[in-house]
Amino acid sequence: MRAATPVIAIDVGGTTARAAVVDRDELRGRVSAPTVRGGGLVYAIVRLVDEALTSAGVSRGDVRAVGLSVPGPVSVDRRRVVFTGNVGLHDIPLADRLEGQLNLPVAMDDDANCAALGEAELGAARGASVAVLLIVGTGIGAGVVIDGAVFRGAHGAAGEVGHIVLDPAGPVCSCGDHGCFEALAAGPALAARGRTAAEQGLSPLLLQESQPDTACLDASAVMAAAAAGDTGAAGAVQETGRWLGIGVAAVASAFDPDVIVLAGGLGDTAVMLDWARSGVRDHCIEPIDSLTRVERARLGDDAGLWGAARLAYDQMALRGTA
Amino acid sequence: MRAATPVIAIDVGGTTARAAVVDRDELRGRVSAPTVRGGGLVYAIVRLVDEALTSAGVSRGDVRAVGLSVPGPVSVDRRRVVFTGNVGLHDIPLADRLEGQLNLPVAMDDDANCAALGEAELGAARGASVAVLLIVGTGIGAGVVIDGAVFRGAHGAAGEVGHIVLDPAGPVCSCGDHGCFEALAAGPALAARGRTAAEQGLSPLLLQESQPDTACLDASAVMAAAAAGDTGAAGAVQETGRWLGIGVAAVASAFDPDVIVLAGGLGDTAVMLDWARSGVRDHCIEPIDSLTRVERARLGDDAGLWGAARLAYDQMALRGTA
Repeated sequence: MRAATPVIAIDVGGTTARAAVVDRDELRGRVSAPTVRGGGLVYAIVRLVDEALTSAGVSRGDVRAVGLSVPGPVSVDRRRVVFTGNVGLHDIPLADRLEGQLNLPVAMDDDANCAALGEAELGAARGASVAVLLIVGTGIGAGVVIDGAVFRGAHGAAGEVGHIVLDPAGPVCSCGDHGCFEALAAGPALAARGRTAAEQGLSPLLLQESQPDTACLDASAVMAAAAAGDTGAAGAVQETGRWLGIGVAAVASAFDPDVIVLAGGLGDTAVMLDWARSGVRDHCIEPIDSLTRVERARLGDDAGLWGAARLAYDQMALRGTA
Repeated sequence: MRAATPVIAIDVGGTTARAAVVDRDELRGRVSAPTVRGGGLVYAIVRLVDEALTSAGVSRGDVRAVGLSVPGPVSVDRRRVVFTGNVGLHDIPLADRLEGQLNLPVAMDDDANCAALGEAELGAARGASVAVLLIVGTGIGAGVVIDGAVFRGAHGAAGEVGHIVLDPAGPVCSCGDHGCFEALAAGPALAARGRTAAEQGLSPLLLQESQPDTACLDASAVMAAAAAGDTGAAGAVQETGRWLGIGVAAVASAFDPDVIVLAGGLGDTAVMLDWARSGVRDHCIEPIDSLTRVERARLGDDAGLWGAARLAYDQMALRGTA
């Protein structure tokens, strides 16, 4: 049971930062603002926290802890942001700085772990003993929750499944390797296949949308063209989905979870859900092929806030202030 | 700390069954016999246990629990052997039957989990918070130990990494799928590559050993020919090692372990250790590529006995009899 003490949950995303006051199972005073890049981020977060408190009608003195989700890897002690290019942070002691500004204990983790905690507590992975949240968007990241706690591995990097090699002869990945799961099944891979289809004259619809050129085509344009009946775009979606299924099956074979929750711009779609389910059915052995479920995320943009709140409550429990 | 109470450890392998009395950190009265197939197995185990007790000078009345390692998957409640073709068991309540015969509590698990527990407690993974034992022999199986306990997943099947697909266009696997890790990197894959090299005239040494035909070549023959300088055999080893490295890297990316321990006829070799280490270095991202170690197993044939003893001690602790 949660204590009847409000905590502050903050979710700093690549483009939007959110904050809310969480009191037991209630999320109050939800506010958001464009993410401030670089050095001004701490003060922007403090402003956002004050807005959330005002909006929820809670004074800062009533709050006992803060949970923070950040869009990139954190250090093993979870005090530093290792690197988040899109927010302009590089090896910054963000948790400590925020603690200094708010005068409250701050617990921090990356977005995948926070969203996984949120979905495990209140969303699509509720009740699961082992759950994996897979974010399929610009890249592929995962958060693994075992018995209600994030499984971090020995060095804080467990669930780096986006860099499992599924095809050594495959396309170059952002990490420099070839054929990583994310190089084959994330948004940019789908966009690249759509561009190729347009350039080869296989996709009239995508060619038509290629203004000024095919470089402007993104994953959602390809998904939309496929949904509109364009066969070239549908082929690109099919190839991406096939690889997504193979990668999701690899994750299932490793962790044997109750459920794999798909999130992210590309992952959280009905089309990719079907491919992921087929992948587990076709590429896992008994009993995983029949028992591991694949579901879409349920908490949407709130997953990170709920997970951040959970971090804050866990921190309070550790300090005996719950 | 372990109690000063002896337990019995039993390791039923595909060809040899072993038993010993374990008292704290001492393994005494180690005995072995060819594994009896099918229905006579329970009585053969009881005889082996009595031999071990006699050999160790311990009476059955002084023993409080029994740990049992079996060469195939067990049910989620770990009372039944699901299927072990090479021992002729299919859905047998082996733990309960042995309990009835020995009048002692029996804790059971599969060989990979037991060996992983053993190596984590006393072998190559000692002190690790997250350890994966990878058995690379006729197939590829894994045992995952997190904080001193086996991680079993939601349905008892965690660590089925032998069936992660690394090449959808690859050779057929024993499971019926294509390009599974074990279809690319286990003993039979190496043997098949050696046979192909012999048949294509690329391996004079293997062709010479193909009496009456190449079907008799096994993985160890290919390893030996490669060690003797045969370039065709060396190519087969290289290709197998490359896939082993890719698969070991996939395991490392999922679990971020302190250490991956290689065991099994093919895995526990200096050549494959090098390939596995290269795989992690080349195919994992920071910090896994530099921090996750790969080591050869240290306990040899005793790993399963030590793991089985650990199961017995854990069972005693659960029942409060330690």
